[in-house]
Amino acid sequence: MLDIGFDIGGTTVKAGALKNGRVVKKAVYPTPFGDPDALIALIRSAAGELCAGEPVAALGVTVPGSVSKDGGIIDAWNIGVRDLPLKTLLMGEVAAERYIVRNDADAAAVAELHAGALKGVKTGLMLTLGTGVGGSLILNGELFTGGLGRGTEPGHAMLDRGGIKCGCGHSGCIETLCSATALKRLAEAACQKGSGMIYLKHAEGAKVDAKLAIECALAGDETALDVFSEYTDALSDAIASFVNVIDPEVIVIGGGVSGAGGFLLDILREKVPPRTFFGSCGRIAAANAGNDAGLIGAVM
Amino acid sequence: MLDIGFDIGGTTVKAGALKNGRVVKKAVYPTPFGDPDALIALIRSAAGELCAGEPVAALGVTVPGSVSKDGGIIDAWNIGVRDLPLKTLLMGEVAAERYIVRNDADAAAVAELHAGALKGVKTGLMLTLGTGVGGSLILNGELFTGGLGRGTEPGHAMLDRGGIKCGCGHSGCIETLCSATALKRLAEAACQKGSGMIYLKHAEGAKVDAKLAIECALAGDETALDVFSEYTDALSDAIASFVNVIDPEVIVIGGGVSGAGGFLLDILREKVPPRTFFGSCGRIAAANAGNDAGLIGAVM
Repeated sequence: MLDIGFDIGGTTVKAGALKNGRVVKKAVYPTPFGDPDALIALIRSAAGELCAGEPVAALGVTVPGSVSKDGGIIDAWNIGVRDLPLKTLLMGEVAAERYIVRNDADAAAVAELHAGALKGVKTGLMLTLGTGVGGSLILNGELFTGGLGRGTEPGHAMLDRGGIKCGCGHSGCIETLCSATALKRLAEAACQKGSGMIYLKHAEGAKVDAKLAIECALAGDETALDVFSEYTDALSDAIASFVNVIDPEVIVIGGGVSGAGGFLLDILREKVPPRTFFGSCGRIAAANAGNDAGLIGAVM
Repeated sequence: MLDIGFDIGGTTVKAGALKNGRVVKKAVYPTPFGDPDALIALIRSAAGELCAGEPVAALGVTVPGSVSKDGGIIDAWNIGVRDLPLKTLLMGEVAAERYIVRNDADAAAVAELHAGALKGVKTGLMLTLGTGVGGSLILNGELFTGGLGRGTEPGHAMLDRGGIKCGCGHSGCIETLCSATALKRLAEAACQKGSGMIYLKHAEGAKVDAKLAIECALAGDETALDVFSEYTDALSDAIASFVNVIDPEVIVIGGGVSGAGGFLLDILREKVPPRTFFGSCGRIAAANAGNDAGLIGAVM
């Protein structure tokens, strides 16, 4: 028996076959945007290839958006899908014993809770800094799925009233300032100004994105350091807000931007405490359940 | 045996003697600002008067600020007090069987949880709109005292980055836009412009505050309605943020501004849902544990 997991992101769909909680086979596909039929066809054919005739125990899918109690997508604007009864539809497409559809940030938090930075934690926060900002709360030692059971979207708490328009339709959400997309936007603006290593790399044809900004900042480029400082100011304000609301024991940072590692964590550990009401905060740590956390959390 | 409760606010200290959870005797004093010695002297003498020689079971004090696990004030800038081991000091001043020092918003939420709008609720939010914005979370059917046990300060989550300076030392906190003080500030600005009933009342010497703004808005004054609309826009943004983070079953509004009653609630019920990620939210209700909720919650 195998488990099959899908981690649907704004850019790619990661798929994997798992045996005893370990990924044994993987594949990556571009995300079909705004096309539910293509998405379901992709899951069907990829699941077929990954299981190669073996029976499937759990089929788990994570989605970058809100998921209803019965496994339907409420709104996942990052992939252009709304009001889709995904779990029900998959039951008719892929043969499996169990079907799980989960918010991607929640899946990542579940993986951290079982085998990562949130292990043994009673009150925790996980922020996944990718195309958007996924957020999950651990309360009472468990994943908190919201008072009305439809998940939570901490990345869409307002931080900057009247600010940048968010993909969710509102404006000034934490996501607009703290996602990898926001870091990319700042890096692009810096390249317009035309100075430093980040500008030169851009002029040489390098793709300007969060990764480049981090790479250049790590290398000591002044322009990139300014960009990263502006970005971490906003991220620290957001984290401080969560400290004031739930005061987590541990704050875990995951997603693409967490690739900056200790460089990012050290900045946050310096910037966050003085911005909180209390003047101090719980531990700030990097996600460490590994690259396959999304796939593992999908089938858990 | 009596219980003695103190509800310390930014303007007044309400005191009461309670028998079997009901207030039997009351007194009100002006709050001594930034003077811990005067505050303790006030509690000592008022407790003496209220108990009139009867033995005291519980002495409960609520504070508009953060309180440590051992009943010390961490920071209550509204009354100008920081780092004061209040519970320990009171033990040497007033004879009682038990001593309780609690955040005022938490005390109000405890009163609502036991006998008000939060009765039977598993996931709830209470916002107390007074001099500041007190906030409390009910999680798992109980008052949530924060992951590190030092209470929570939802009113100091950031809403308007780079916005108005808050008494807590940071800027753009929910409190800066959603307190009765914020409503007063908007009303004062409207009076500067010089039109409408609110201006006339101001010109006749009426005190311009949240109460006057509400009174004139209720009477249909256009200027006051604009003020109230601007205020409820910000308050709705704040509530929508909490919906995105914890999605409470019930959102309870207390404090001075909640005196606007159904007029306020109807506006919030219209404005909040479309501002949330989900497009809908739990029930919005007024605090209904009564005027003595602070005193009752203090000794509970």
